[in-house]
Amino acid sequence: MIVESRRVVVIGTGLIGTSVALALRGRGDEVWLADRDAASVRMAAELGAGVPLPENAGPADIAVLAVPPAAVAATLLDAQKRDLARVYTDVASVKSRPLREAAELGCDLTCFVAGHPLAGRERSGPAAARADLFLGRPWALCPTPETTGPALDAVTALAESCGAQTVVVGADEHDRAVALVSHGPHVAAAAVAARLEAAPEVALGLAGQGIRDVTRIAGSDPELWIGILSSNAAPVADVIDAVAADLADTAAALREGGETAVTELLKRGGAGRRRLPGKHGDRAGTYAVVPVLIPDRPGELALLFQAAGVAGVNIEDVTIEHSPGRPVGVVEVSVMPAAAQRLADELRARGWSVPG
Amino acid sequence: MIVESRRVVVIGTGLIGTSVALALRGRGDEVWLADRDAASVRMAAELGAGVPLPENAGPADIAVLAVPPAAVAATLLDAQKRDLARVYTDVASVKSRPLREAAELGCDLTCFVAGHPLAGRERSGPAAARADLFLGRPWALCPTPETTGPALDAVTALAESCGAQTVVVGADEHDRAVALVSHGPHVAAAAVAARLEAAPEVALGLAGQGIRDVTRIAGSDPELWIGILSSNAAPVADVIDAVAADLADTAAALREGGETAVTELLKRGGAGRRRLPGKHGDRAGTYAVVPVLIPDRPGELALLFQAAGVAGVNIEDVTIEHSPGRPVGVVEVSVMPAAAQRLADELRARGWSVPG
Repeated sequence: MIVESRRVVVIGTGLIGTSVALALRGRGDEVWLADRDAASVRMAAELGAGVPLPENAGPADIAVLAVPPAAVAATLLDAQKRDLARVYTDVASVKSRPLREAAELGCDLTCFVAGHPLAGRERSGPAAARADLFLGRPWALCPTPETTGPALDAVTALAESCGAQTVVVGADEHDRAVALVSHGPHVAAAAVAARLEAAPEVALGLAGQGIRDVTRIAGSDPELWIGILSSNAAPVADVIDAVAADLADTAAALREGGETAVTELLKRGGAGRRRLPGKHGDRAGTYAVVPVLIPDRPGELALLFQAAGVAGVNIEDVTIEHSPGRPVGVVEVSVMPAAAQRLADELRARGWSVPG
Repeated sequence: MIVESRRVVVIGTGLIGTSVALALRGRGDEVWLADRDAASVRMAAELGAGVPLPENAGPADIAVLAVPPAAVAATLLDAQKRDLARVYTDVASVKSRPLREAAELGCDLTCFVAGHPLAGRERSGPAAARADLFLGRPWALCPTPETTGPALDAVTALAESCGAQTVVVGADEHDRAVALVSHGPHVAAAAVAARLEAAPEVALGLAGQGIRDVTRIAGSDPELWIGILSSNAAPVADVIDAVAADLADTAAALREGGETAVTELLKRGGAGRRRLPGKHGDRAGTYAVVPVLIPDRPGELALLFQAAGVAGVNIEDVTIEHSPGRPVGVVEVSVMPAAAQRLADELRARGWSVPG
């Protein structure tokens, strides 16, 4: 849907709010920023996400409430009392309870479309924001019977402007769904990661990519997640109870030397995994990754970036797999696919080891 | 360690065996290939992994037994009866039981070094093999009291030729360690993925990166994994029992509306997660993070690393938060805590914006 340049208020300049703001600024929208934390607004503004919300500003086209689930209803009521915008949406990971609370507070639900972009990172705050955070990601919209068509159209257009794909779904159905594909797995990842708290050093030294992937989301902000899990308690409890039961049964089968139950779980896991649409979890799908082996010495990375500059390649992201004491590390450089070969050639020409 | 070109027999031309063969061929070793499945040997040979094991070949320098844990002892006995090599190693994910079985079968353990490269993929078979599979990965070696020094040296050199970092560890300690960082997490990933088997389409449509990461390893070959888990049953059962207990307690706390137990698990998960060495773990753990706002221009990053060099600061890890079209990016530089202030001062002195 093509829309004119909008005036958007983003309330809450954390990871999601600032990422929405950056995406909208990128297409020319005017963005006003607000947050309880003035320093957070300053950083978001410095990053190019918009300008601080002016005093006595007239109503914007849309207000995006990027606050925790428990704060959505009160923030909506306050914003509507101040007439901050004509249409309101939120981005909280839970929908039923905030909607119920908003109705109880007497918010105007005709111009409110509850929303939830299915994108996030294990890191929070405006500094972690990215304009491309929502590219190709699902963005759930949960209109109520009171919601007007124009309000739904406006929020749909905003989500699409961020590059997301909208999915209209009932609030209860949404909450059970995210318990299954997000909140439950998050608790499971934390439970696996919690085993590492008292792990011997040798075990940590033998950690491979598997445990890193399984526990990645366990690195997320606990304060944020306690709010999400508490707001969606029953559906999440159902999911993790079922996971716990499967694990206990499997442990018993292993102790008894019975392979059938273990094989069954592995096969069911494979079948469930295969139901996930799309590529199997390639977050950096938009970029090509060039791996390069580098000595663990100061200055080596500067040479790497110099080489990229010489090759005229803009580095989008870099991750370094390096363990203290190891003489070499594997650096994964994310670049636009068209530039991957050029970068690999330049690095090889400079004597770097570029596998594959 | 520098070694002359070797003659190596690889028994078992699956993912790991063929990857070892490709890595060794890449440095000029002569590699002989054997497998129960002649088609698998042919494919590995076509991929450049070596040549089929000749009839009545003289003993090779090393034989790599790339067979499932349950087959290691019998394969070792057979290989030693045929005098296939002077030194033997395996790559199975479990060490204690195969070693016990080898001793019971009367294998010669003086020239055997049990080994385990901590690398793998969801795909199996020779077609999935990669010469760089072991680059920068840990490779556990479990010599027994009988193992000779020269045998350990030879297998250490072989692992290093594949680009791996060797870790010498006792077999029992190894098995408890991999139950914690690999086998237990694998079962947990399968249990989470199993929830998706009966998930409604709308839930699958809302799946984001988190569930994909948590369940990635659940896509692995069940036949291979049932063998691994059965061979390491007790340590794995201990781990997944503990995970199941944490999940059941958390579910109960959620149903009772108590946040304390949930918060505790999330915090323990974060603490465990931060203990993982390398790119995922150290950011908030061992190292201090210095965030820097930098213009999105080629060459700026090189200047950043030059500044670190001038300040005498060794950069341990770096993450670049850059969005297409954004005027500035945020670079998070991980350094030893003692060096963080020095780096921040140097960067500010050079006109960089260092928040906080």
